[in-house]
Amino acid sequence: MLELYTDDFFMNEALKEARYAMEEGEIPVGAVVVSNNRIIARSHNQTEALTDVTAHAEMLAITSAANHLGSKYLHQCTLYVTLEPCVMCAGALYWSQVSRIVFAASDEKSGFSRFGNLFHPKTQVMKGIKETEASALLKTFFKGLRE
Amino acid sequence: MLELYTDDFFMNEALKEARYAMEEGEIPVGAVVVSNNRIIARSHNQTEALTDVTAHAEMLAITSAANHLGSKYLHQCTLYVTLEPCVMCAGALYWSQVSRIVFAASDEKSGFSRFGNLFHPKTQVMKGIKETEASALLKTFFKGLRE
Repeated sequence: MLELYTDDFFMNEALKEARYAMEEGEIPVGAVVVSNNRIIARSHNQTEALTDVTAHAEMLAITSAANHLGSKYLHQCTLYVTLEPCVMCAGALYWSQVSRIVFAASDEKSGFSRFGNLFHPKTQVMKGIKETEASALLKTFFKGLRE
Repeated sequence: MLELYTDDFFMNEALKEARYAMEEGEIPVGAVVVSNNRIIARSHNQTEALTDVTAHAEMLAITSAANHLGSKYLHQCTLYVTLEPCVMCAGALYWSQVSRIVFAASDEKSGFSRFGNLFHPKTQVMKGIKETEASALLKTFFKGLRE
């Protein structure tokens, strides 16, 4: 059983979102934003459904969380996402001044980290939480595409 | 008089958008997307109005142009924007595979170019078109904020 309010617990919620994306034929990436141990936004990649390259899970989560808070800035919030953010999402997270980012799988091809740390100096970053589950989901999706 | 269908002409349209942003109390940045000499999307910065750090002129223009085309990709399109794109917008433009980007003023503090070329290898980039007008607008805005 998952302990409440841990990184594992919240990443599991992001993984649920990633599975929704997969069911919809989208690259399976999910995200949640947490404030005071409450999930205030949840989203998954919708680039195909919305015909919009900007509709990554993180972008939708940032917009949704800001809407919930009534503030542009995600101070005292943690964003959990199942895949390393791309340059676009890292840039958006920079502007959001989010306190903490936790991601699961690394993305050597399209992840932000090729360019160094693109986040706000105040933002803490942690990676590898539930990496195996997140990677397995992505591998299954891309294997399905090739077959 | 401005000649039709030139970079000057289309950047002038982006500058009109930047002026709308200024009238609304937003940082004055405007953008248009052009396909076959037609403007298919126009937008300006709306981060304050929408309480959303992702609502930069370029992001709104990409979404709007993709909606118009019914395609995620902005092939054979040019995006004109009055200020050098930030990292987020450069990342979004990468995903859009836009053919050409023309920007007016440089942004030493927040522009993408601190990190090298973040765009798609197929994307051509040009800068400096109507730089003086775009910079003057930004200077007037920030001077007004300080007073």
